Amino acid sequence: MQVSGTQSEYSKTADNGFDDLRAVSTERARAVIRAGAYTGHTAGIGLGFLQGNLVILPAGYALDFFRFCQRNPKPCPLVGVSNTGDPMMRNLGEDIDIRSDLPLYNIYRNGELAGQVTDISEIWQPDYVAFVLGCSFTFEEALLADGIRLPHIDTNKTVSMYRTSIQTTPAGPFAGPVVVSMRPMAPANAIRACTITSRYPYAHGEPIHLGDGLQIGIRDLSKPDYGDSVPITDTEIPVFWACGVTPQAAIHMAKPSICITHAPGSMLITDIPSWAGGTLQQYY
Amino acid sequence: MQVSGTQSEYSKTADNGFDDLRAVSTERARAVIRAGAYTGHTAGIGLGFLQGNLVILPAGYALDFFRFCQRNPKPCPLVGVSNTGDPMMRNLGEDIDIRSDLPLYNIYRNGELAGQVTDISEIWQPDYVAFVLGCSFTFEEALLADGIRLPHIDTNKTVSMYRTSIQTTPAGPFAGPVVVSMRPMAPANAIRACTITSRYPYAHGEPIHLGDGLQIGIRDLSKPDYGDSVPITDTEIPVFWACGVTPQAAIHMAKPSICITHAPGSMLITDIPSWAGGTLQQYY
Repeated sequence: MQVSGTQSEYSKTADNGFDDLRAVSTERARAVIRAGAYTGHTAGIGLGFLQGNLVILPAGYALDFFRFCQRNPKPCPLVGVSNTGDPMMRNLGEDIDIRSDLPLYNIYRNGELAGQVTDISEIWQPDYVAFVLGCSFTFEEALLADGIRLPHIDTNKTVSMYRTSIQTTPAGPFAGPVVVSMRPMAPANAIRACTITSRYPYAHGEPIHLGDGLQIGIRDLSKPDYGDSVPITDTEIPVFWACGVTPQAAIHMAKPSICITHAPGSMLITDIPSWAGGTLQQYY
Repeated sequence: MQVSGTQSEYSKTADNGFDDLRAVSTERARAVIRAGAYTGHTAGIGLGFLQGNLVILPAGYALDFFRFCQRNPKPCPLVGVSNTGDPMMRNLGEDIDIRSDLPLYNIYRNGELAGQVTDISEIWQPDYVAFVLGCSFTFEEALLADGIRLPHIDTNKTVSMYRTSIQTTPAGPFAGPVVVSMRPMAPANAIRACTITSRYPYAHGEPIHLGDGLQIGIRDLSKPDYGDSVPITDTEIPVFWACGVTPQAAIHMAKPSICITHAPGSMLITDIPSWAGGTLQQYY
């Protein structure tokens, strides 16, 4: 299964135009991405604007996936849902075409990765529904702005992610464990991080656990299920957020005939300010 | 068009068993309601538990109505969506049957009120989807608990409601103006009310406007479109919240072949604590 990328991928892909895109406006960055001229990750690009995970499903799966997100808002915070067959995300920006405005797409058939493309215009179908879900880039930006260091970024790793013993509330074929991302923090920073991230319900919101990983079924923090192992010092505690890999795990289990997602780290950049938080509606 | 009831309906219907139901547990109150022995409003019953507006639509309308709620979260805060054809609201309580657990239902055909019943078991269809939306009872309870007086309750009136010049973000056939409820408050209370209600995103959250009604298209506060006129003193300002009549107005315009809602004021009482707010998920 593929996993979401993180800001630590900055440097890993920094040789394919990333530095150029960081310097330009969100509008310009999107034009470059739309033209297929950039296929890397989006963390640090269009800074200040909400980014989102993408899940595209045929309409026959849409109502159940919609329910899955409504029932599991922490891992699956919906920020936009397209009209059936309409590729324009009319409520996320002035001119966002979901078929071309992400750098790279994963195509899954029956739950298995079947290919990667930079544009899905040729395979877009009139019964497709696009779901955009908020992602951790938004709250990591807020934590960094507050001066909280994130070890996985400092050490150029992908954030540690774990399958937990917490089960999602199922909807139709969509089910499975809640996947969490973990960031080690000094206790004082953990407290500040709870407060800060609670202001971003559309980016997973506040943590769902902190401290003893065993309480949520994580036996060994040094062995993440996805991403890299990130050391924890004696004065730090692990803080766990619901993670956007959760819906990907559910899709893997549901095995829809086709599903198109963002490639890890290559998110949709919207026109909605990152800090919109609970007042997303005023931007619609 | 029918409008949602408010706490001011306490006394209007206080002669049909209301006082008895206020004194019993939520579980017992629901049993009485399920038996069809109480057909009044639910404000003040099951105090401390989240109540919800009800909208039942055939599956053919469900995806668009789901989108309408996702795009308009302030007037349409979704707290639960049933599986297609399944009348049990499994994520809102231990044993909630949406066909019988509201005191009174309105049945609309092609957007027009066609009848009122205390039980919809006989007309429930295998393609029905039930949507439960948070309502203002929850935040009014919080305001009253904070010592903020609400004139419409003090004077035994229905809260004033207005169609505004703010348009909802449409989805399929669902569209129309945002309807607001208005509560006059001293400025200091208005500020506290903003803070308090912002903690209840599943009950319309913070206000969407305060002060000059003309800015949102309300010409005369003394002439509400729904509910009663409530006087405003010279030292008070009007505070406006997005209102659950908004989706009812959208349904009136969409004219679905059939739609079943709660009768005004006769809400679903859930097992979810009123204060769950942004952390609804932990109760699923």
